[in-house]
Amino acid sequence: MTQLEAARAGNITKEMEEVAHSEGKTPEDIMRHLAAGRLVIPNNINRKARLVGIGEGLRTKVNASIGTSPDIINVDDEIDKALAAEEAGADVLMELSTGGDLDAIRKKVLSASNLSIGSVPLYQAFKEAIDRYKDPNKLTDDLLFDVIERQLADGISFMAVHCSINRLTIERLHRQGYRHGGLVSRGGAYMVGWMEANGRENPLYEHFDRVVELMKKYDAVLSLGNGLRAGAIHDSLDRAQVQELLISCELAEIGQDMGCQMMCEGPGHLPLEDIEANVKLQKRMSNGAPFYVLGPLTTDVAAGYDHISAAIGAAEAARYGADLICYVTPAEHLALPNKEDVIEGVRAARVATHAGDLVKLKNTGRDLAMAHARRDLDWDAQFKNSLFPERAEEIRASRSPEKPETCTMCGSFCSLDNVNDYFKESLKAGKKEKGVCL
Amino acid sequence: MTQLEAARAGNITKEMEEVAHSEGKTPEDIMRHLAAGRLVIPNNINRKARLVGIGEGLRTKVNASIGTSPDIINVDDEIDKALAAEEAGADVLMELSTGGDLDAIRKKVLSASNLSIGSVPLYQAFKEAIDRYKDPNKLTDDLLFDVIERQLADGISFMAVHCSINRLTIERLHRQGYRHGGLVSRGGAYMVGWMEANGRENPLYEHFDRVVELMKKYDAVLSLGNGLRAGAIHDSLDRAQVQELLISCELAEIGQDMGCQMMCEGPGHLPLEDIEANVKLQKRMSNGAPFYVLGPLTTDVAAGYDHISAAIGAAEAARYGADLICYVTPAEHLALPNKEDVIEGVRAARVATHAGDLVKLKNTGRDLAMAHARRDLDWDAQFKNSLFPERAEEIRASRSPEKPETCTMCGSFCSLDNVNDYFKESLKAGKKEKGVCL
Repeated sequence: MTQLEAARAGNITKEMEEVAHSEGKTPEDIMRHLAAGRLVIPNNINRKARLVGIGEGLRTKVNASIGTSPDIINVDDEIDKALAAEEAGADVLMELSTGGDLDAIRKKVLSASNLSIGSVPLYQAFKEAIDRYKDPNKLTDDLLFDVIERQLADGISFMAVHCSINRLTIERLHRQGYRHGGLVSRGGAYMVGWMEANGRENPLYEHFDRVVELMKKYDAVLSLGNGLRAGAIHDSLDRAQVQELLISCELAEIGQDMGCQMMCEGPGHLPLEDIEANVKLQKRMSNGAPFYVLGPLTTDVAAGYDHISAAIGAAEAARYGADLICYVTPAEHLALPNKEDVIEGVRAARVATHAGDLVKLKNTGRDLAMAHARRDLDWDAQFKNSLFPERAEEIRASRSPEKPETCTMCGSFCSLDNVNDYFKESLKAGKKEKGVCL
Repeated sequence: MTQLEAARAGNITKEMEEVAHSEGKTPEDIMRHLAAGRLVIPNNINRKARLVGIGEGLRTKVNASIGTSPDIINVDDEIDKALAAEEAGADVLMELSTGGDLDAIRKKVLSASNLSIGSVPLYQAFKEAIDRYKDPNKLTDDLLFDVIERQLADGISFMAVHCSINRLTIERLHRQGYRHGGLVSRGGAYMVGWMEANGRENPLYEHFDRVVELMKKYDAVLSLGNGLRAGAIHDSLDRAQVQELLISCELAEIGQDMGCQMMCEGPGHLPLEDIEANVKLQKRMSNGAPFYVLGPLTTDVAAGYDHISAAIGAAEAARYGADLICYVTPAEHLALPNKEDVIEGVRAARVATHAGDLVKLKNTGRDLAMAHARRDLDWDAQFKNSLFPERAEEIRASRSPEKPETCTMCGSFCSLDNVNDYFKESLKAGKKEKGVCL
């Protein structure tokens, strides 16, 4: 029985209890949202991991992607990155290796990390087709489904599978006749190439029930990949990708009806003004299925600082209802991220999801505690309420003030230290919690 | 004659021509917006600087603030920071020293930098009152106006002056009865303290005409300081600060009627959902005067990463019409920023203003060129169109791919390199500029 089937039968599982506990919700709440298809718990019957819920009413989650590339194959480095991502506060991890012995690397990362781990099986499927047949377009249905099951059997908890690129979607792409940024999803681009070369329907769409049954067998989440996602601001919300999103939302419903936990994926690159529309479109067309967005990057020209371009978009996406954010690192568009890039990427995404959740969830207690700690110059409380206490302490300690209650920005000129005494009565006492629902 | 007076008389000055040239506008456009009070050019008859325009129709500008504190007084470091900020792309600079010989430091920074430089004269005024009388509340009107003129005579081009904190504003603060984050503006807090201690109206409000005449004498911009700005998410748009903003908008109109270039300042800390309202309120109440916002920070708990918390807010503020963004550095709330912090702060703000300007100005040509450069794997064009070409080249060069047309993220598995050939005709040719107004 999958989490979704259990929820629909009115059963509360230990997985639901774990998520309820970590989110401060009741298990009934989690069950109800799961049953409605508005919340998923990435899981795998073959692997014990720290579980998180993704969806309505819950804190927006952050995914960190790691993995080798054909150019840089060092499993120890990838394990370091996986552990660093976890330490920096990533909620889930995707293992996206494309270089080296993919089965062996995946097993090692799965055994090193405590997080629920996702994958994109098309990478390995096309790589094995290239290794065997020297041609990705010789990929067979059997090999494709074999790779999916192999990854699930190892303990993968959620999978980005590009089921929604079908002949209809490709027709839209051809009729549209342009793509400023080209096709930037590797899984998506290779699959479109395969379909064109073979003149066939996408086997992941044609045999969608087979994909769903595999996910159900392991209680994993099927995340409908965004193969035509915009890789440039000017491709945002173009007809090709909206067609694919529409099919994703349709498949999400079909998959849920079959008892499988489902999630949809989104862009990519979006100007600030398109983010609200994109999130609302997905939520409406899927009846509220969890939405997993990559970035979104709000400008194309910030290479080296794309974690900030993406944090801007992620905050906006979370605000309007995105449930899981894939981090972007400073190395995006330039190179395989290193460990420092992974840490900066996770932290930027966490600032963004928190800023979005302040609006989406009205979970503002931690910010209120920080406001009071700052007003009262209580540094212990300031560090305690920081998202990144170690980093904050490190900066402060690197430049210590003469008056320990201040900082070196203002020192003895600190307005809070000197002037706020005038207002102690009227600004601190009695009314301080006014209008705040804790 | 000030820039505003010249514009109202229908004269195009060389300053307007310089701004028109750098923005790709006609001098008549600049003159018209200046005359309407919707655009300012920070200037000073005593100092030649690289001029920028701030306001309607123009690229959103970035300010970097530097300056000593009582704890850390090293003029060479501040000059290094000023030059680093300019190099990183700051449009204007504020010299906000509060430690050491303030006159000497200001003169040195003014002579080292090419940028237009702003100040907050209340810092020096209160510091000199403390030095002379051991009590900031003994500050006299004469000393206050003497400091303002001294700074202008040295070549300061725009000044944040806290004219809008008046008895009416303070009454609102008392009746409101709370301030979660206290008073965080140093100039504002000291002025409120002075008014309470002396039982007097703010001399900057009472003698507003004297402030305006001083600014006009040097052709500088009077930026109405935001003394009660929110220093915490929970103080966003509280009655005290909206009262002050209302007075700022009223004074902006009065100052313009007197022939002075005017700008209003805003917060501070704002949740994502309040930014649009804040910007629209200022624009409506001031009839479109330029708006200078600090941050805004979208969460209180990101210490160490406040440049990202602020970049999220700055993008949203720019999108809705903010004209000048004060950067926030990673050291915010913790320590005086060092040179690295200054560079990171400027770059984060530039990503944000660009993301906002994509929506506000529809200036999307650079992003389109980048999209095509990425699609075509043209790395020279990618670096050329980057906001930070050196940083981008450095990251790519640190991890070189085997196939030089790819990067180490995907290497030989690059979708653009391998798959997009299928679509060369339909996705590159002919229709590629469709819907794009260049």
